[in-house]
Amino acid sequence: MSTTVATEDLGEFQFECGESIPNLAVAYETYGEFTGDNAVLVCHALTGSAHVAKRRFDDADDDDALAHVPETEGQAQSWWSDVVGPGKAIDTNEYYVVCVNDPGSCYGTTGPASENPETGDPYGTDFPPVTVGDWTRVQRAVLDSLGVGRLHAVVGGSVGGMNVLDWVSRYPDDVRRAVPIAAAPRLDAQSLAIEAIAQRAITSDCNWNGGHYYGEDQPDPSHGLQIARQLGHVLYLSKASMEERFGRRAAGREAERDTFPSDPAADFFPYRDVESYLDYNARKFAERFDANSYLYLTRAMDNFDLASGYEDDADALAAFTGEALVMSFTGDWHFTVAQAAELSDAFRETDVRVAHHVAESDHGHDAFLVEPETVGPPLSDFLEAGVEGKAVTDADGDVPEEDTIPPVHSSLF
Amino acid sequence: MSTTVATEDLGEFQFECGESIPNLAVAYETYGEFTGDNAVLVCHALTGSAHVAKRRFDDADDDDALAHVPETEGQAQSWWSDVVGPGKAIDTNEYYVVCVNDPGSCYGTTGPASENPETGDPYGTDFPPVTVGDWTRVQRAVLDSLGVGRLHAVVGGSVGGMNVLDWVSRYPDDVRRAVPIAAAPRLDAQSLAIEAIAQRAITSDCNWNGGHYYGEDQPDPSHGLQIARQLGHVLYLSKASMEERFGRRAAGREAERDTFPSDPAADFFPYRDVESYLDYNARKFAERFDANSYLYLTRAMDNFDLASGYEDDADALAAFTGEALVMSFTGDWHFTVAQAAELSDAFRETDVRVAHHVAESDHGHDAFLVEPETVGPPLSDFLEAGVEGKAVTDADGDVPEEDTIPPVHSSLF
Repeated sequence: MSTTVATEDLGEFQFECGESIPNLAVAYETYGEFTGDNAVLVCHALTGSAHVAKRRFDDADDDDALAHVPETEGQAQSWWSDVVGPGKAIDTNEYYVVCVNDPGSCYGTTGPASENPETGDPYGTDFPPVTVGDWTRVQRAVLDSLGVGRLHAVVGGSVGGMNVLDWVSRYPDDVRRAVPIAAAPRLDAQSLAIEAIAQRAITSDCNWNGGHYYGEDQPDPSHGLQIARQLGHVLYLSKASMEERFGRRAAGREAERDTFPSDPAADFFPYRDVESYLDYNARKFAERFDANSYLYLTRAMDNFDLASGYEDDADALAAFTGEALVMSFTGDWHFTVAQAAELSDAFRETDVRVAHHVAESDHGHDAFLVEPETVGPPLSDFLEAGVEGKAVTDADGDVPEEDTIPPVHSSLF
Repeated sequence: MSTTVATEDLGEFQFECGESIPNLAVAYETYGEFTGDNAVLVCHALTGSAHVAKRRFDDADDDDALAHVPETEGQAQSWWSDVVGPGKAIDTNEYYVVCVNDPGSCYGTTGPASENPETGDPYGTDFPPVTVGDWTRVQRAVLDSLGVGRLHAVVGGSVGGMNVLDWVSRYPDDVRRAVPIAAAPRLDAQSLAIEAIAQRAITSDCNWNGGHYYGEDQPDPSHGLQIARQLGHVLYLSKASMEERFGRRAAGREAERDTFPSDPAADFFPYRDVESYLDYNARKFAERFDANSYLYLTRAMDNFDLASGYEDDADALAAFTGEALVMSFTGDWHFTVAQAAELSDAFRETDVRVAHHVAESDHGHDAFLVEPETVGPPLSDFLEAGVEGKAVTDADGDVPEEDTIPPVHSSLF
């Protein structure tokens, strides 16, 4: 299996908002060999990159060859290598996997941190607003350059799953099998609120400066970005998993305690394990991610609405004639099982062959990333055999929704 | 019924942390006439004040007389007047209601914003850390000064309910009936995390300055406090109630859009109703509340653990011989029904007569404030007749917990 790590210059690109930039450079990676009908597009989530799987090169005799191509900056580890790779659920010995870094991000594709050729300075917030539709159109353009027409499958989790839904409504003939995982046709009010708060933490950071903070001597709005990320962590974990993992324990070490400013009165109280987790992960995240990219990508996510421009979700999906696997997790309160049920109902309404596979998990939204043993079998079998795939189950139809849908971690609520 | 609005100087006060201040002034209010055995202490929640009910004065002929005593600053409206007052659930024609502003707060009782007599400047974060135990001890001192020994009841919601539990463990002989509402023996990891993030928003605000921001020309850390409050709002509402109330609607007006800094790219996207709600309420809150007080009071809440210093919760409650009404709300994900069930089990274990009254509500944690029709009847009947009170129900015992506990807004999950 060979890996390609590349950048495609798309030239002038007009975003859905109407604004254009002179050149959109798009970072992408491919894994495996294209045989004409085996392409699988993987759509990354909010802060992911094109680096979905471990890289292997044909001319490599040993692991040292991995050094041929530098890892995507700050993404030293591939983000879904337990699911994508040789012999994995998305088997790169069988499928030609393509993953594209979204415009607006900061992992190789042009975004706010990239240089604006007209000024020689980083775009900052002069970069045009981006939408999930822009991501889809850019992915389509990259696939065109690779000679890929119809995709065997489009797979993605979280906002990557929204990206999958956008493919199905925008290019219905180009997708044989669609797999939105831990996704929904749109964010609900609670998730919109949490994202809005995260965005406000960034824009009110002392160093944000209207989004123009890239100067050499200028500090980053890192506290704002850290707070945004910490909110993400709470959203991605379930109440039960947080309780089990951290409880009220004091942290074993205080190394992260100075991540944020504090005061003498705070020292009377323990620095807790859950704080240490949040501070450590937020600090690491702020080292690898751009605050403006976080703003841009979350806004795209907030804005996505499958039904936008259509009568309703079913109407948006009506032209699709492939099959769909909607996967959801019982502990996920960001994208709930009930939202996934609504989505699969919309597929069903249009006579698409669909299965709503509900996985029991206490991991919350993160389950799609951290439970390959849960995600893998239904995904693999669906890619091979569609909704008839052996490990694919369908929660819908049997029982009324309110009784079927396992409540989020009922043992704690 | 007469109202007293007063301040009691307790003189030098030593906090649980060991530090002292030269004088602790305590703002409190009383409603009704004390007959010797009819005192009800109401414990306020995080950002509440002593002003629990509408004020009425004996010498008042008309409403103008209300102007005799200025309203607690920034708390123009009494916070629980639908529940406390003449003819209300806590009937001030019958009971002598006392409510005390907690030390650390900013509604009349000495806290970080108060002047440090040793320096002539506000304490800021030189104010000693406070605990729920400090609140209880201060309430006990104020009641002593009023000649109140044993209380007919102690009632409180949210962290006010933790304050109730502290009374029961600290002064078990002084409480006949205890009513912790929407409360728990301790915060779980998820709530600790959300509070930690709120605290970080305050301490990383450009204007926080280590907690010393009270100078005349110094700006307040209002953005940080606003973000903290917005997180509170999400925590206090249920997923279902947010969806029903706001959905994804654009705001009818954009007046609040400049509450936080923004950038041109943001204008491409709608300003949503839920954002307008969060911005408006956060802005109003930051006008009335002190950021350091928010830090101090949330830390007290984080720190409270009923079992601290005891073997377990039941041990902490063992000396109590009164009755308890534990009230919880199905839509509350801050203090869950399951946590209330644990608490009532602990009471039961010590042979306290207890009822766990579970109220169906989609209002989330806020239900105890905004649903007097739900809270009132069981509360009123319990105050009168204990657990045998007519409207008091008990969810425990009948069915195993996992089946009994209504999941949080199952229709949305």
